[in-house]
Order: sequence, then structure tokens, then C-alpha cells
Amino acid sequence: MDIHDPDDKSGSAYYLAPPVSDLDLVSVGRGTAGGELLRRYWHPIAVASEIRDVPMVLRALGEDLILFKTPAGSFGLVYPRCCHRGTTLYYGKVEERGIRCCYHGWLFATDGRCLEQPCEPGGGEKRDSYRQPWYPVEERYGLVFAYLGPPDRKPVLPSYEPLEILKPGESIEADGTSIGSGGDAIAPCNWFQHWENVMDPYHVAVLHSSFSGIQFIAEMAQMPEVSFEPSPLGIRSTQIRRKDGKRFRRVTEVAVPTLRVVPNPFAAAFNQPVETLGWVLPIDDTHYRIYTAGRVTRAGGLLPLPKDFKGSRRRWQDMSAEERQRKPGDWEAQVGQGPITFHSEEHLASSDRGIAMLRRLFRKQVEIVAEGGNPVGTVFDQNDAMVRFEAGNYLEEQS
Amino acid sequence: MDIHDPDDKSGSAYYLAPPVSDLDLVSVGRGTAGGELLRRYWHPIAVASEIRDVPMVLRALGEDLILFKTPAGSFGLVYPRCCHRGTTLYYGKVEERGIRCCYHGWLFATDGRCLEQPCEPGGGEKRDSYRQPWYPVEERYGLVFAYLGPPDRKPVLPSYEPLEILKPGESIEADGTSIGSGGDAIAPCNWFQHWENVMDPYHVAVLHSSFSGIQFIAEMAQMPEVSFEPSPLGIRSTQIRRKDGKRFRRVTEVAVPTLRVVPNPFAAAFNQPVETLGWVLPIDDTHYRIYTAGRVTRAGGLLPLPKDFKGSRRRWQDMSAEERQRKPGDWEAQVGQGPITFHSEEHLASSDRGIAMLRRLFRKQVEIVAEGGNPVGTVFDQNDAMVRFEAGNYLEEQS
Amino acid sequence: MDIHDPDDKSGSAYYLAPPVSDLDLVSVGRGTAGGELLRRYWHPIAVASEIRDVPMVLRALGEDLILFKTPAGSFGLVYPRCCHRGTTLYYGKVEERGIRCCYHGWLFATDGRCLEQPCEPGGGEKRDSYRQPWYPVEERYGLVFAYLGPPDRKPVLPSYEPLEILKPGESIEADGTSIGSGGDAIAPCNWFQHWENVMDPYHVAVLHSSFSGIQFIAEMAQMPEVSFEPSPLGIRSTQIRRKDGKRFRRVTEVAVPTLRVVPNPFAAAFNQPVETLGWVLPIDDTHYRIYTAGRVTRAGGLLPLPKDFKGSRRRWQDMSAEERQRKPGDWEAQVGQGPITFHSEEHLASSDRGIAMLRRLFRKQVEIVAEGGNPVGTVFDQNDAMVRFEAGNYLEEQS
Repeated sequence: MDIHDPDDKSGSAYYLAPPVSDLDLVSVGRGTAGGELLRRYWHPIAVASEIRDVPMVLRALGEDLILFKTPAGSFGLVYPRCCHRGTTLYYGKVEERGIRCCYHGWLFATDGRCLEQPCEPGGGEKRDSYRQPWYPVEERYGLVFAYLGPPDRKPVLPSYEPLEILKPGESIEADGTSIGSGGDAIAPCNWFQHWENVMDPYHVAVLHSSFSGIQFIAEMAQMPEVSFEPSPLGIRSTQIRRKDGKRFRRVTEVAVPTLRVVPNPFAAAFNQPVETLGWVLPIDDTHYRIYTAGRVTRAGGLLPLPKDFKGSRRRWQDMSAEERQRKPGDWEAQVGQGPITFHSEEHLASSDRGIAMLRRLFRKQVEIVAEGGNPVGTVFDQNDAMVRFEAGNYLEEQS
Repeated sequence: MDIHDPDDKSGSAYYLAPPVSDLDLVSVGRGTAGGELLRRYWHPIAVASEIRDVPMVLRALGEDLILFKTPAGSFGLVYPRCCHRGTTLYYGKVEERGIRCCYHGWLFATDGRCLEQPCEPGGGEKRDSYRQPWYPVEERYGLVFAYLGPPDRKPVLPSYEPLEILKPGESIEADGTSIGSGGDAIAPCNWFQHWENVMDPYHVAVLHSSFSGIQFIAEMAQMPEVSFEPSPLGIRSTQIRRKDGKRFRRVTEVAVPTLRVVPNPFAAAFNQPVETLGWVLPIDDTHYRIYTAGRVTRAGGLLPLPKDFKGSRRRWQDMSAEERQRKPGDWEAQVGQGPITFHSEEHLASSDRGIAMLRRLFRKQVEIVAEGGNPVGTVFDQNDAMVRFEAGNYLEEQS
Repeated sequence: MDIHDPDDKSGSAYYLAPPVSDLDLVSVGRGTAGGELLRRYWHPIAVASEIRDVPMVLRALGEDLILFKTPAGSFGLVYPRCCHRGTTLYYGKVEERGIRCCYHGWLFATDGRCLEQPCEPGGGEKRDSYRQPWYPVEERYGLVFAYLGPPDRKPVLPSYEPLEILKPGESIEADGTSIGSGGDAIAPCNWFQHWENVMDPYHVAVLHSSFSGIQFIAEMAQMPEVSFEPSPLGIRSTQIRRKDGKRFRRVTEVAVPTLRVVPNPFAAAFNQPVETLGWVLPIDDTHYRIYTAGRVTRAGGLLPLPKDFKGSRRRWQDMSAEERQRKPGDWEAQVGQGPITFHSEEHLASSDRGIAMLRRLFRKQVEIVAEGGNPVGTVFDQNDAMVRFEAGNYLEEQS
């Protein structure tokens, strides 16, 4: 029974239409609109230093995979089910030349080629006709990046200027614990809900300030002057506030496919390139995690606090369910949109224009891929692979 | 492959047909046959005194909703997802004028009207064009009642005589802990399985007596003389037993949509109006809970035991799984029919004629609603809103 | 979007086709291809000595059932939902004549006939027209066997020679704890994954030896000479190894529907009939358990270790998740194929020819049943009911 009354003036929930999500934005699986766009880029899938001498199970873009690292330091990323009889390679053994299945001992190289079949005549005279399904992997910035798309469309792994130009004493550190402001490493909602939040600077003055108390530095509580503009690979937002009689100009960016380029919200330092980059990994349609890499001057120094920081928030892990209800943060607001938000029920307003721009950009790339093209930012020549950003916290004399 | 043999004489389970439930009786969702009937009445959804200063999540008739109470005592019942960007209002803040979303601070009145939009120009110059989906709520008898149906069919909230006429020293108390005889507050089965049990007085002499031991007063173990008759809003059953040389006449009733009008099975007092009313709230297709309101002479005095009660049953909460298997009660018998019973597999007998009457009555109301009419007991004039019952325990001289 | 590239040479997981399971092999439900074959045989569903005086819930071939044993020792196996109003007979009471429902006291015999209806006139004058759906049960070898198929195709329960001919001091013991080598009693994967493993003797030299360390006796680590041949009810495999200068000939068998005839892998004794038989009970499509019965000379003596056994493996129950990852056994290899393996992704090789034979045999029987015939090993005359095996560990002079 369809319930609908276009003339209803009551606003009753009784007349709510069945909800719909925009699959161009939220789908991540192989063969889906969003998933095929995402599959044209490299994604971080692990922190390199966290890989041990046993195979690791992970999920990325809706696919369950096995990641392993040989003693010599080569990475392999393979389909979990052994191509022989389907036993998971999670129980496999990592050896110099690859990964060996526990059941009948077939050995596979990092590119899936079968190297040994100890139960077959001659140790596997026909082994060249078997291959374990695999994906290419590269290590950079302390992260393991994988490419899950069509082999003939594989771009080069980009370089990012903020992570390439280091000052003396700086090094790169990687992390996979997601939102610094609180929450579990794996968030139980669609990745796009987090990503588009980066182009929503208005909520800082409410959620992180007037509603739940000051969650960053005090100046972030000001409702800023906000502007948005297209950038080469995404959208850039500028937020103007006042600090110590000066102009506090904060520039945040998003870049396809999933990058969040957000300067330290504690503004520990000004007028320097953005310290960290974040990639939102779509684990599946209803889970994501964030990998970050950044310049540090000491171990564990990602997202430093300013020297004069006086805030003292309780750590998210220490808060009770009721404390989180009374003082929600990014985690609660975004996970609170549900496993996959319903776009049909939204009412975007003028403060959502950055989000609207981002969605248009993303849908445009989905369309390009569907039509056989290469989406923005996919580069096939190493000479074109450097990506630059303008994001940062800037403290300037009033003009 | 269809397996069927109409000539089978073996009774083998091999020939069981695929089971079917009667959706007229058990469906509770919006747009379903049963659900649309249920949506023509007010239902209790909470005990008023249990609402705190934070929003409360609840489910009723298959819908997830947020209930809140302003400092001034007004109740609001709204769709959980903020109409702006979908964040749950569970993380909202309850204020004098309504509920405020944590994400961008939109403030909604108890009737869903948008009162503030702090991130929008001028604090929301266009706020009148946004409205949070909502349902009307009324507090009575210590319970919060809600109407989830079409706005133009909203009846008045009925008054119930047993809760309106109080003797000196009596007051009304409300409770939401479901079956007094044992079980969790939320039962994991369809609500109709509990409701129709009220028109099944025969099981008292088996389940509550010969099978599991005396669970009420000793006289209830007698197999009674039973009769059923239609009442203005439902079905009324009379059960005749003997007690102390007198006639123990017990009258129980059910009334649409979900009322159970059951006198104290411990028969603490005789020849007075029924003390408590119960409403079975269909939470969703496979869960219910019971709200009760009754006259008491002291706090916590719902369902008192008679002064000379000698029984000593173990409390359900204290029983092990095996004890519950060996001494089942209403909870086990009804939840034991499964999440939704299969009507196609039943074999009703003469002792089920009350249940058959009740189902016919309910199906008739479903039909009335489907044809656009108003079902029995929906009253639109406050002067017609008083509901009376004959239920009670009566001790009478033998006629 | 279908993703497929027949010309792909990369081996990328991007081109994996949607996986498919062979339902002839793995389906167990009523009306399915595999399930109807399985329903032409008796299956053990419980260890007789473990049945207590309360009804027991179990699942077999995808059906939830209630098993009970009367004080006189008769077994009943019935559909769980009482044919009256659907309450589960799990809460029923086991009496001399059968099982009584808790709700209204209907009493059912072990063959489902209704014997009493205490709430009906005259205690149930029409009780003969009601029958609880049921299945036949027989106790043998300490196990309770049930027949869940069409009544007119019920074969006699076979006798098994290794369990019928006992030497002085020997008795029969039964067990239901599944894989002796480690794992829970109920395994979370399709039964066929375990069963076909019995016709895969090659994995012993890898999984149980070179990969995870010696899990049986040292001689089992040798890669054997292997042959397979059809047997009257299944497939027989012979594995030749060397031990103490002699020929160690090991014969293992499988027989329809689910029998595993596997001599003690610790080879405690040689040149005698196989000690134990195992039946793989398909609980449902994604769970199985194994019942075994065997000759013992002392209580608890199933699967004895040889007197000179020097191995010392950690017990599976005591191993951590990481220890199981590093030293997997049968449980890990088979459960690691997933809830139901994907046959479309397999690449069988020459060492899988026993498995291929077994699958052909099983599919052939499925076909026979689908065409209305009686599959191999279904016997309808008690005189033909004895089943013999050649399985065993044999130590022989070199020929």
C-alpha cells in the first residue's frame, strides 16, 4: 500500500516516502557506479609497519583480501580462496618466494603465479597454468597502497608535495586509527558521510563548539566566513576567522578519490604546508577507515597540540554512552546518519553548498568512468604524478 | 520441488507444507493490513516518569522514533533522522522550545516546525519551509500515548472508567515491564500471540497449574466453565469456578486495538472494578511490550497478592534455562510459538473458540479500514470517549 | 555491470567471475537435489546416552526437530511446533506414553498420534483426527538414527560388520564430538567439505606434516603412493608408505550417504578391521557434525594412541587464534573453504582424482533419486542389510 498525500499540511511522519540513497556516491563494490570510479585509483589498505610474518585479512572496496609481506619485504595482495580447492590463504605460510597454502602446499608468488605443487607429479609440471587472483601493491609514506581496478587502466601512484618536501629533522609517519577526534578505527557507516563532512566547515561552530563545548582551539568556535572553489583534483574551502587581532585563514581541501587535506584543527603552527594527508578507505558499503600520513619531528607526533593549548577534553574511549550522547563529536554525527544515509530525505541549505559541489564533482567522475574515460587525477606518466595542495592554517595581517 | 501427498496416512513431517502466517493479524508496519488498523488508535509508547532530559530512542509499530520531553513538560515524538542532513536526533539537545540537532544546530518544535538554523543566513530566514516529520503525543495515566496514523483520522484519546473513578487513597500507577508472570520487558514474538492468549482461559488449568505447578491462586487450577460473548469494543469471557463454597466468577476482556483487561489472577480482592488495564504495544512484527496502568493504594502496588497468599514461586529472573524448560509460563508458551506463529499449521479446537472470535473481530476491523471506514472504538467527540468494562473477580452465592 | 575479459593475461582478481556452488553436492534441505538424496537414508542425530528426561532440540538436514525418550526407553522425533497452536514441544513434558505440550496439555505418542486433549470435551473425543508431524527413529551402536525421507521409501537401517563382530572384551562406544584432530563439535561449513576430504589422502603429507608439523605418526608424513577404486557403496583409497622396513598399506573408504571409514591415523594397531565408523550429519547447508561409533576395550577408548606414540601436540581447545593460524589442521583447512565452497573457482589437479570420483558418484545418486529410483545402498530386506569394508592399517612384508 503506497501512502502519500501531496496536500498534507501536517508534516506527519505518516506520509514519509520510502527512503533512497544515491548509489553514485555510496556504492563501493566491483561493478557498481561508485565502486568502478574508486577502482581507478590507488588506495591505502594498511600501515606497512603493522604487517607481521603471517598473512593478514582485510576488506577494501567490499572485497575480502589477504595481504602478506615476504621476508625480503615484497608485498602480495591476493584473493583469499586458494585457486586449487578454495581454502583461505589466511592459514597460508609466508615464504621467501610468496605464500603457501596450508592444505596441499601450493606456493604462489606475489603476482599470483603458481611456483610449487608438492602433491602433483614432479612437484607441479603444469603449475604455469594456475594463477592465484591478485592485485598490485606499492609501499609509500609508510602505507601499503593497492590498485583494485582494471589492469589496463592502472595509473601511477601519485606523489604528494606535503609528504615529499621535508625540512631538516622531519620524517613521515603513518597511521590507520581513523578520526583523531574520537571513534573506533573502523566506522560503521558509508565512507562518503565522512568525506563530505570535510567540505562542511559550518558544523565546526555548532557540533564542535556551541553544542558539545570547545573541541578544538577556542577560535574555531567562531562562525567563519566561508567560500568554496574548485581545485585541480577536488574542492577547496577557505574559512576566515579572527585570532589575536589577525586574520586566521584556514584552507581545507578534498581531492578525488578519497583524500582529506585538513590542516591541524588545533592550529599548532601557522603559515606552513598542511602537515598530514588522510585517505578514507571504503571498506564496504557500510564501513570505512582512515589512513593518514604526515610530517613529524618526533615519533607519534601526528596532529600535535599547540604549545599553549589549554583545552582538556575527555578521551572518546573513556566516555560512557551517555557522555557521548550529551557531547557528540564527528563520530556520532556521521555514524548517526545511519549505515548509509538517505539522500532522498535531506534538505540541503545554503551552508551545504560545498557538499553539493563535491557531490556534483564525484558524480561527474562516475559518469566519465561509465563512458569509458579516465577520471580526474589518474596520471599515467611518472613525470605528472606530483600533487600539490593549498591547505593550511594561515595567520595574516588584516587587509 | 514441491513435496505433497494428499493420500499420506503416515503423518510424516516429510509432507509438511510451507508454513504461512495470517498477515491481517500479525503485520504492524506502515502500509500493511494490520499496521493500518493499528494506526487508527492511540498507543502507549513510554512510561512518562521514565523520560529524562535526553532524547530517547524507541520503536513502535515498526517505526524507529525519538521521544523527548521539554523542561516545561511538553512531549515531542519525531522521526529520528534530522530533515537537514540525516543525523539522528538521539544526539540532539532538549531545550525549552524543542529539540536541537547536534550537527548544525537546527531547532525543531514538538510539532516538527523548524525554529532556528544557526548556520544559515540570518539564523534561518527560510526556516518555515523545513519541518521535521513528527507524530502527536498525549500524556495520560502516567503513560505517554502516541498516534501514528493519518492525521485526518486521528480519534480522541479514550478515557477508561476503571482509571477515572478512584476511591479515597487510590492513585494511578503506570508500568512498562510487560508480563507480570515472568519474562523480559521486550518479548521476541509477535504481539498478537500475547493478545489472543487473553481469550484463552483454558490454558490456565494446564500451563499455570497441572503442568508447571500452581502459578496463581489454587482455585485457578480448576478447569472452569467458560463462555465468550461480544463486547462493545472486543470480546468478553466469563469463567466459573468454585471457591469457599461460593461461585467464583471471573470476567476477562480484550478490546481493540490491543487492550487486555484482566483482573488480578491472584484475586486479592473481589467484587470491584478491574484494577489494571494493559496495552500490548506492537514494537515491530516480532517484538512487543506491555504497558499497564492501574489503581493503587501504595507505590509499587500494581497486581497485589491476596493477604492470605501462600504460593512461593521462584522469580523468572532467578530461574535457569532448565528450570524454565521444566516449569514454563506464559512467556515460554507464547514466545515458544516462534517470532511469528504459523497459522497454516494450527488446528483450532472447541477450547479455541474465544481466539477464533477475536481473530474474526480483528480481521473485520482490518477490512473496515481497507475500505476507508473508521474501525470500532475510534471516537472523534470527547463526550463519547469514556470506555467501560465488566471485567473483574466476583465471589457470589451459588444461584 | 558484468566484468569479464576473456583475453586478460594479468590474472587480476578484478576479473573474477561471480562464484557458484554445486547444489547437487551441498544442498541438504527438503526438496533440494542433495537433500532428497540424503533423505533416502538413515542418519545418526544424537548419542543415545546423552538424552535426558527433557525434550532436546536438534537440527538435521536443515530441519529443526524435537527428540525425546520415554522412561521406558522409546524414542520420539517430532516437528517442534505443537499441531494445536504452535508452541514448541521443547517446553513439553516427557511421559510414559509420549510428550505433552505445556500450553493446553495435548499428549502425543512417539508416532505423533494425539492421545489426550485435557481442555476439550471428554478429554478429546476427536483426538484421533489430530497428529503431530513425526519421523521414525531407531537406536543402534549407541546412536539414535532417524529417517527423514518419504515414508514409502524407508530402507532398513543397515548393520555394519566392523561394529557387529566383536572380540572378547570389546564393546561399542558412540561419540558426537566431530573431528578428533581438533575443532568444535559443530563445524560452521557444509558437510561435503569434510566428507570429500576423506578421499584426499595427499593433504596428509602437507597439512598434517610438512606444513603444520607432524600431527599423526611420523610415517604419515611420507607422500604415499595413492590409488582409488570404486567400492560397493562408495570409493576406496589405498595409500602405500614404508614403516620399519615393511609396507604400510592404509585403506580408507567413504560410503553413501555420509560415511567416513577411516582407520586410526595414529595406527595404534595393524591388520585388523577398521575400529570406528563416522557419519557426517549435515545439520543444515552451512553446518555439520560427526557421529562416530567404534569397538573399544575400555571406556573412552575411541581412537587410541599407539603404545609407543611420542608426539605431543597442543590440544586444539588450548591453542590461541594465532597458534591455529600458524599450525592449522583439518578444521582450519575445511572451515577455511568458507560456509559453502565455490566449486566454480576450483582447479582440480591429478591429486584430486579421488574427490572427482566421489563427486561423480554422489551426483549419479542425486540423478537416480530425481528420476524416482532408489540410490545405492538403500536396502529393504533385513537379510541384505550387512555392510562390509576393507578399510584398515596393514603392515606387510615388501612384495
